[in-house]
Amino acid sequence: MKIAILGVGTVGTSVINILKKNRHMIAARAGEHIEPVIGVVKDLKKPRECDIELTDDIDSVIDRDDIDVYVELMGGIEEPYEIISKILDKKKAVVTANKALLAYHRYALQEKAGDTSFGYEASVGGGIPIIKALREGLSANKIEKIVGILNGTSNYILTNMMQSGIKFEEALKQAQDLGYAEADPTFDIEGYDAAHKLLILASIAYGVHGNPEDILIKGIEKISSEDIFFAKEFDYEIKLLAIAKKTDNKAELRVHPALVSKEKMISKVDGVMNAISIYGDALGESMYYGAGAGGDATASSVIADLVDIARENKNPMLGYKELSEIQKIELLPTSSIRTKYYLRVKVEDKVGVLAKITNLMSDNKLSIDTFLQKPRNKNENHTTLFFITHTSLEADVKRVMSLLEKEDFVDGRPFMIRIED
Amino acid sequence: MKIAILGVGTVGTSVINILKKNRHMIAARAGEHIEPVIGVVKDLKKPRECDIELTDDIDSVIDRDDIDVYVELMGGIEEPYEIISKILDKKKAVVTANKALLAYHRYALQEKAGDTSFGYEASVGGGIPIIKALREGLSANKIEKIVGILNGTSNYILTNMMQSGIKFEEALKQAQDLGYAEADPTFDIEGYDAAHKLLILASIAYGVHGNPEDILIKGIEKISSEDIFFAKEFDYEIKLLAIAKKTDNKAELRVHPALVSKEKMISKVDGVMNAISIYGDALGESMYYGAGAGGDATASSVIADLVDIARENKNPMLGYKELSEIQKIELLPTSSIRTKYYLRVKVEDKVGVLAKITNLMSDNKLSIDTFLQKPRNKNENHTTLFFITHTSLEADVKRVMSLLEKEDFVDGRPFMIRIED
Repeated sequence: MKIAILGVGTVGTSVINILKKNRHMIAARAGEHIEPVIGVVKDLKKPRECDIELTDDIDSVIDRDDIDVYVELMGGIEEPYEIISKILDKKKAVVTANKALLAYHRYALQEKAGDTSFGYEASVGGGIPIIKALREGLSANKIEKIVGILNGTSNYILTNMMQSGIKFEEALKQAQDLGYAEADPTFDIEGYDAAHKLLILASIAYGVHGNPEDILIKGIEKISSEDIFFAKEFDYEIKLLAIAKKTDNKAELRVHPALVSKEKMISKVDGVMNAISIYGDALGESMYYGAGAGGDATASSVIADLVDIARENKNPMLGYKELSEIQKIELLPTSSIRTKYYLRVKVEDKVGVLAKITNLMSDNKLSIDTFLQKPRNKNENHTTLFFITHTSLEADVKRVMSLLEKEDFVDGRPFMIRIED
Repeated sequence: MKIAILGVGTVGTSVINILKKNRHMIAARAGEHIEPVIGVVKDLKKPRECDIELTDDIDSVIDRDDIDVYVELMGGIEEPYEIISKILDKKKAVVTANKALLAYHRYALQEKAGDTSFGYEASVGGGIPIIKALREGLSANKIEKIVGILNGTSNYILTNMMQSGIKFEEALKQAQDLGYAEADPTFDIEGYDAAHKLLILASIAYGVHGNPEDILIKGIEKISSEDIFFAKEFDYEIKLLAIAKKTDNKAELRVHPALVSKEKMISKVDGVMNAISIYGDALGESMYYGAGAGGDATASSVIADLVDIARENKNPMLGYKELSEIQKIELLPTSSIRTKYYLRVKVEDKVGVLAKITNLMSDNKLSIDTFLQKPRNKNENHTTLFFITHTSLEADVKRVMSLLEKEDFVDGRPFMIRIED
C-alpha cells in the first residue's frame, strides 16, 4: 500500500520513521507493507529527520495513480479541505490528524467520502484510540455523557498550579519553557482546541452538527490562587473539561474549567496526559487515557488508520451506516445548562453583606450548598466569599453574577466555575 | 442479521434486551437490524427475563441455514470448543465471551475460523473494548508491556482491605454478600481468571502460545494486615496484576499481587473496576478502564462484535494477517523473572538476627533498598521485618526465602510480594 504524506513536520516525520522501524510487524498485522513513497512540503530546503522523496508540487502528487492513501498533516482548514475534496473525488482513501478541519467540515467530508475510507483517529486524544472505542467498541450503547481532558497544555498548567501552588502566569511560562505550550498559547488555554475535538466526539455520539462558535467555550486563564485554595480545601481537582451529553433531547456541549470531585477517575489524570470518560447505557463509565499530543503518539493513531484501510475495514466515518433521524439533534442553548456552580466574590468586610448576597441569590433561584469565608488579610478591608450552589440554571447564575457586580460592596467581577460531579 | 444465543444466562439475557432496547440506533450504526431469533438453554423450565424463542436442542440450531452469527455464552471449555468448531466448519460467524475457551484453544480456533469472523471482545475486561484497542488501535506499536487489573473480585477485596483496614477473610465475605464474589471464589482470588485473560492479550501482543499451567499465577489469599500496613507506610497500593512483557526475546507472563507505586495510573483503579495499561513503543502508556464484569457491560462488548460483523470488518482474529515469525515466541521461565521484591519475615527479637538475614541476602545476590522493623507487641517475643530489594532474580529470592524458613530464629514462612514500578 503506497501512501503520500502531505506535510512532513513532527507528526509526518514520526509516521515515516515508525513505518520504517516497525515495518515487518506492521505488515504482518496489516496484511501488506505500508510504504510512504512521497512527502509534500512547502519548503524543500528545510532539513527533515526522515528518509523520503520530497516535493513541493502537491498537484503532481494528487495526480499520481499509484498512491493508495493520502495522509493529510498540513494543518489549516480551507486549504486541506479543498485538497482532500479533490482526493476523495478520485476515490482515494484519506487519513488526517486535522481536528480543525473536522470541527468545520466533518459532515461535508462524510458525504464526499461515501464508501471511500476516511480515517481521523489522530484528530482527538493523540495516540488514544478514542474514535475506535466510541464508534466501534461502544456501538451497543446509547451514549449518556462524554467528559474529556482533551488538551494536554491546559492540564499540565492546572496540575502544576494545584501541586506546586504557583500562579497561572508562572505555570504557563514553565509549560512554554518545556515545550508543552506554544509561544501563542491562546488556542490551547482558551479551550478552542478541546472544543474542536469535542465536536468530533459529539458527532459520533449524537450526530451533532454545528461549529465551535455554536458551543460554550471558556479557558483556564482566569483561574486564581484562591480557586486553587478552595479546591484543595473541599477535595476537588480543577480540570479543563470538554463535556457532551443529551439534555431534553438536545445536545449539551461545553468546554470550561471545572471543579471535579477527587472520587472521579478523570480527576486523577495529571500533567500533559489526555483522558476521555464515556458513559454508555449498557457499559456505564469507561475511560481512555494516554498521550494526547507528540509526534510518535499521534503517528500511532495515523498508522492505526492505515492498517484499518489495509485490512479493508468498513467502519462508517461518523459511526452511522444509515444517516437516520439519530443524526438530527439540536444544540442546547448555553443559558439552559443546568449544573452546580462555584462562585467566588470579593466583598467589603462589613455587617450585612452576606445577608444581601444570600437574599439576592435566593431571589434568583440559586440555593447554596456550601459556603466558605476566607480569613481576611490584616491589611485589607476586603474578604473573599466562596459559594457552591445546588444544581442551578446557567441563566440564573449569570444574572446573579451581573447583579452582584453592580453592588457597591462587591470588588471587581465575581468569578464562576462549573462543577462536574 | 439473525443471531442465535447459545446460553441465555445473565449475559445472554442482557444481549437480547439491549438489542431490543437500542434496536434502531444499533441498526443505524450496523447498517442492518440485528435480530436474536433463538436461544439455546439446558433447562427450558427456568424463567428468563427476556423475550425470545427457546430450545434445548442445540444441534437443530446449528443445522439452521438462516442463522448468520452464533453467540456462545455457555461457559466451559471442551463442550463449547466442539460446538464452535462445528459452526466454523459451516463458515458461520461466532462471537464468544468465553475466556477459558480462548486460554486453551485460541490458535486452533484461529485456524478453524480462517476468514470467518470470530469475535471475543467480551472475553477480556468485560465491556472495555480492549481487544479492539490492542489489536487495531495500537497496531503501529511494538508492545513493550501490558499491565492489567483483570479481575474485579480481587480488586474489590484488595481495595476494601486497603481502605477499611479489614482482613482478607472479612473482605471476601463482604464481596460474597454483595454478589461480587462467588460462593467458591477460587477462580477469581487465586488468579486463574486473570491468567486466562492475560494469555489472550499476550497472544495479540506477542503471539504467545501456551496454557494457563505454563505461567506464574499467584492469588491474593495470603495478603495480610501487615502487608497492608507496609504498603500504606511506603505509599504503595496492592493490586492483583496480570503482566505481559518481552524479556530477552521471550514472553514474560505473570499474575500475582503486586505493590504498585501510587504514582502509577493503574494504582488508582479501585473496587470492582478493571483497567489495562498498555505500553507501546510509539504511543507510550495508554490505559483502558471500565466495568470488567456484569451482564450489561459484557453484553456491550458482545454486541460491538456483532456490529463489527454486520459492518463486514475484517480484523484478523489474533491481530496478524500473516502468521509470520512474530507469532513464535517462547515463554520466559518463572525463575528468570527480574523485578523488585517485598519480603516480610517474622523473627525472634534478639541480637544478631538482622545481621544474619542481611548476610544471607547478600550471599545470595539480594541487595536491599528499603528496610523497616515494626515495633514489637509487648506480649510477643517475635517482631516482623520488612525488606524491599533492588531489582533481583526470582530464583535468588526464592532461594533466600527457603533458606530463611530453615533458620531457627524465623517464625513461619517468609512472604514475598513482587513490586511493579
